[in-house]
Amino acid sequence: MSAPRKIIIDTDPGQDDAFAILLALGSPEDLEVIGVTSVAGNVPLARTTLNAQMVLELGGRPDIPVYSGCARPMVRALFTAEYVHGDSGLDGCDLPSPTAPLGTGHGVDFIIDSLMAAEPGTITICTLGPMTNLAMAMVKQPAIVPRIAEVVLMGGGFFEGGNTTPAAEFNIFVDPHAAHVVFTAGVKLTMVPIDCTYKALMTPAWLGELRALGTRTGVQGAGMAEFYQRFGNQKFGTDRYPLHDPCVIGYLLQPALFSGRHCHVAIDLVSPLTGGMTVVDWWNVTKNPPNCTVLRELDNDAFYALMLERLARLP
Amino acid sequence: MSAPRKIIIDTDPGQDDAFAILLALGSPEDLEVIGVTSVAGNVPLARTTLNAQMVLELGGRPDIPVYSGCARPMVRALFTAEYVHGDSGLDGCDLPSPTAPLGTGHGVDFIIDSLMAAEPGTITICTLGPMTNLAMAMVKQPAIVPRIAEVVLMGGGFFEGGNTTPAAEFNIFVDPHAAHVVFTAGVKLTMVPIDCTYKALMTPAWLGELRALGTRTGVQGAGMAEFYQRFGNQKFGTDRYPLHDPCVIGYLLQPALFSGRHCHVAIDLVSPLTGGMTVVDWWNVTKNPPNCTVLRELDNDAFYALMLERLARLP
Amino acid sequence: MSAPRKIIIDTDPGQDDAFAILLALGSPEDLEVIGVTSVAGNVPLARTTLNAQMVLELGGRPDIPVYSGCARPMVRALFTAEYVHGDSGLDGCDLPSPTAPLGTGHGVDFIIDSLMAAEPGTITICTLGPMTNLAMAMVKQPAIVPRIAEVVLMGGGFFEGGNTTPAAEFNIFVDPHAAHVVFTAGVKLTMVPIDCTYKALMTPAWLGELRALGTRTGVQGAGMAEFYQRFGNQKFGTDRYPLHDPCVIGYLLQPALFSGRHCHVAIDLVSPLTGGMTVVDWWNVTKNPPNCTVLRELDNDAFYALMLERLARLP
Amino acid sequence: MSAPRKIIIDTDPGQDDAFAILLALGSPEDLEVIGVTSVAGNVPLARTTLNAQMVLELGGRPDIPVYSGCARPMVRALFTAEYVHGDSGLDGCDLPSPTAPLGTGHGVDFIIDSLMAAEPGTITICTLGPMTNLAMAMVKQPAIVPRIAEVVLMGGGFFEGGNTTPAAEFNIFVDPHAAHVVFTAGVKLTMVPIDCTYKALMTPAWLGELRALGTRTGVQGAGMAEFYQRFGNQKFGTDRYPLHDPCVIGYLLQPALFSGRHCHVAIDLVSPLTGGMTVVDWWNVTKNPPNCTVLRELDNDAFYALMLERLARLP
Repeated sequence: MSAPRKIIIDTDPGQDDAFAILLALGSPEDLEVIGVTSVAGNVPLARTTLNAQMVLELGGRPDIPVYSGCARPMVRALFTAEYVHGDSGLDGCDLPSPTAPLGTGHGVDFIIDSLMAAEPGTITICTLGPMTNLAMAMVKQPAIVPRIAEVVLMGGGFFEGGNTTPAAEFNIFVDPHAAHVVFTAGVKLTMVPIDCTYKALMTPAWLGELRALGTRTGVQGAGMAEFYQRFGNQKFGTDRYPLHDPCVIGYLLQPALFSGRHCHVAIDLVSPLTGGMTVVDWWNVTKNPPNCTVLRELDNDAFYALMLERLARLP
Repeated sequence: MSAPRKIIIDTDPGQDDAFAILLALGSPEDLEVIGVTSVAGNVPLARTTLNAQMVLELGGRPDIPVYSGCARPMVRALFTAEYVHGDSGLDGCDLPSPTAPLGTGHGVDFIIDSLMAAEPGTITICTLGPMTNLAMAMVKQPAIVPRIAEVVLMGGGFFEGGNTTPAAEFNIFVDPHAAHVVFTAGVKLTMVPIDCTYKALMTPAWLGELRALGTRTGVQGAGMAEFYQRFGNQKFGTDRYPLHDPCVIGYLLQPALFSGRHCHVAIDLVSPLTGGMTVVDWWNVTKNPPNCTVLRELDNDAFYALMLERLARLP
Repeated sequence: MSAPRKIIIDTDPGQDDAFAILLALGSPEDLEVIGVTSVAGNVPLARTTLNAQMVLELGGRPDIPVYSGCARPMVRALFTAEYVHGDSGLDGCDLPSPTAPLGTGHGVDFIIDSLMAAEPGTITICTLGPMTNLAMAMVKQPAIVPRIAEVVLMGGGFFEGGNTTPAAEFNIFVDPHAAHVVFTAGVKLTMVPIDCTYKALMTPAWLGELRALGTRTGVQGAGMAEFYQRFGNQKFGTDRYPLHDPCVIGYLLQPALFSGRHCHVAIDLVSPLTGGMTVVDWWNVTKNPPNCTVLRELDNDAFYALMLERLARLP
Repeated sequence: MSAPRKIIIDTDPGQDDAFAILLALGSPEDLEVIGVTSVAGNVPLARTTLNAQMVLELGGRPDIPVYSGCARPMVRALFTAEYVHGDSGLDGCDLPSPTAPLGTGHGVDFIIDSLMAAEPGTITICTLGPMTNLAMAMVKQPAIVPRIAEVVLMGGGFFEGGNTTPAAEFNIFVDPHAAHVVFTAGVKLTMVPIDCTYKALMTPAWLGELRALGTRTGVQGAGMAEFYQRFGNQKFGTDRYPLHDPCVIGYLLQPALFSGRHCHVAIDLVSPLTGGMTVVDWWNVTKNPPNCTVLRELDNDAFYALMLERLARLP
């Protein structure tokens, strides 16, 4: 049996970020979370940092350090999404203040130092929010780029359009320049866009099973999920709503549940109408060489079954 | 019974333009084609003008005048699509040279003069190619704008992306500035994007029925359609391929076959990645007021049944 | 002695346009004004058309026809400059309503028809406002392009920046797309930017001489000039203010009074900060081939002496 | 007598950067150089770091630490200028390899840590190259912004246009996004554009005096300057050529030698023609509030006299 894969989770929790973190924590045979870096996104940095700590403690892993990262995007002013996640970013749950101290140093430096200290190709970066921390790390220390095993990111959209503007998905919209840095870096890259995550639909039945676990994770998780799906219910008028970010971890755990295509992807940085759009050349009309694996389909039942199994292991 | 609706068909034939024209000619109780204006697009102007004449004569209506329009887009250099339509634009058929003379005057002026001479609200403009002629008419004579009954256009795409670049559909890509002029004019506007037309799929069985009509229109039409679907077959790997442009006429004939949404649509004019994209705010996230009815669904069987019925009336 | 050079003056009067027209009218041995086309710019089209007629009648040439042109730019919404020219566009003078009828047909068509009817290379186009009419003519009928002897335009700026935004001069700012069409057409092109015209400074002494002519042209011209320079006085704090547009006619009359450089010039169409800027590659750093003669210096004393001499001939 | 002003010099030497550093070193009563940070720009980072060390040792100050900074711009790919500065960046001199060790840590962190450790308002940042390090510091740790006394930068151009493209000056062109971050930060900002530095002209006589100092600084400085002005001689055809970067230090030493205007300045980030342009609203036509003091004039004789006096103090 092989050693678990080492990952850094870069995140702006966010209810769905919380599920991603918990899914990773429930999968120690597959994934070793060597650290979590926070970034401004769904809510400001002070909250995402706190939220990351609270979720690690909820999952029984206060020992995993959280490193506070960038409080603003690289070029644009910060745009947040309290209208989706609530003011705290984790509305719907009731978690105690974290007791473990923050990691020493900046999130950007944790990414750099971890990659420079480890064997090349042994650390995977999972970004669940704006990609500011990773891009800043690449600009500050370009030597990390060839040392990254893979970047798996939640972000972007193509045939689904965007969710923040008609053309742009939130994570890329908030820091398109960071996304551009990562997409042009030459690193192994897997993108989980809303085209895929919109198919990762929670059902009321699944939420019932989660709550019925009776654990703190099950109860608090169900609370978060219920708050979160209210926004979706208003927009789409259904009682099924997607959890975006855990797809990143799901893909690392069981890639066979997902399918997609190797494509060229570019980020629009200039248009007032399409800034932050991930322009995915799905049909290869541009003849640009692929730089990203773009996921589009998943086996939703298997994915939620996996998530329930793994969350059930947590306190 | 009401009088047939007066339309001007602005076109760059193109096999699918030919089907649109023929569908209109086969529907005299519904539509009166007062003139056809040609524009550079699928192939250069000299060919689209000739093709428009040949198709009118194929349909038995050499009396309908063709007015030669703009040979180039408003701002960009011309981009053509012989790779789709063949060098003639109508590859796959064998039609005699036209015998009727061209209409006197420029296509832009035919649009202006027709609108200024008619009762306001009595003429509908159907654009099947780049919207250069109509936009030029609006800039040359803004007084036509409130006199237009409706503009129904084939062009654009949103959840399907583009067909010429990852983001842009051909007709809008070729002259995005013209599209911008029309989309910002304040005119009643219905857009038939590839999101709709990709569902207007010819089947081999339908093609067989068309050919079996035994008429010149049936035989030549089938020839054109067969050539045309080769491109699609290569791209999508199926034996069903869409005819885009006749959807415009189909919508005028039987709007109940189509459904869509009233949205705000803007045209990107600035990004190298997304220039010519129709940014459709399907979910109204921008809160911009709607300026266009965007069709997305059609009853494909009923549409092709209608087309066969109407084409069967032609010589 | 050679025949006078045939010119079409395309204009949006504007006090300085008026001086340009009058300078041409006073120079019949050098220039034959075959027609004047009006365009929206300094003020809306209805006023610029009327103003052009009034100035021709002031100059004693009601026989020269005025053709009303475009009421709006090709792509953008119209932006006018009553803050410079007053509500009438010719504030400062008192001219009777014109008595001659408007030319029959549209300004765009007058440009096209004149060029198509004349020997190639015999007609020069002088644009004193936004280049909408000329660009529309080029798009409507590309065959005119090789028939144009030369285009001499007032517009743009480079080392002086702009006068309407920090980067853009008024005429180009109002219709940058039209300017792009003309600058990329491959026509012989001479540009008189504000870098040159800012050196064409009226002095109070010259204004005194103009008024002292005692003619209607002298008195009304002085009135216009005095109103016009008020804006400049406020901005620059001097009693010398430039007359931009007559430099175009001055260059046609005595090119030796002007100097410049053959350069590549491109028009920015995309940036909110620099839209409408004429990007002049004065030092040839881009290695793009020159497409324009850019004037930068003039002999101001000789120019104003010439202007006074020619205006003195008018009624 | 007040204490000398604490400065950090952020630099990509470059011969003119070298003069700036030496001018600061020769002015200990006015300026305390607390550290030097290197950045990729004129030449790649490895060379600019080495060059900064060599210049400090030439000036007799191996004790001032050099911190290696960013090897690439924030968003764009690196563009260098060996065509101006020679392959080493310091062609024209012959300096020994540095003996002092590099400062520990990254240039970005030196800027952050220095500012966070010092009293607010006591450290001035002088940027002589692309502003990558300072902008990265602001993004990584926004709390530094209100602690900066002032940023004085060499970069940009307005009435002189650019020196790298027709619109953009080298330092801003290389990293326009970094410049945007700094110009929108709300920090006290003084810009020394080429409009000012093009007037800071070395004469052959001054170069003779510099060499005649007989010191190592004089001899090596003269060698660098002679190499450097060859590029200018080719471009402008004169024997006088500007030293850009020392104007930044000259302004700190004797601001009365310089004059300018408080303006709004924005950086174009989107146009292929004007990307990296500093759009200076010199005439306040936009009514945007000023965010920068833009220098335009200097007393050249006094400036070079000052420089000679200060360089004469060095070994």
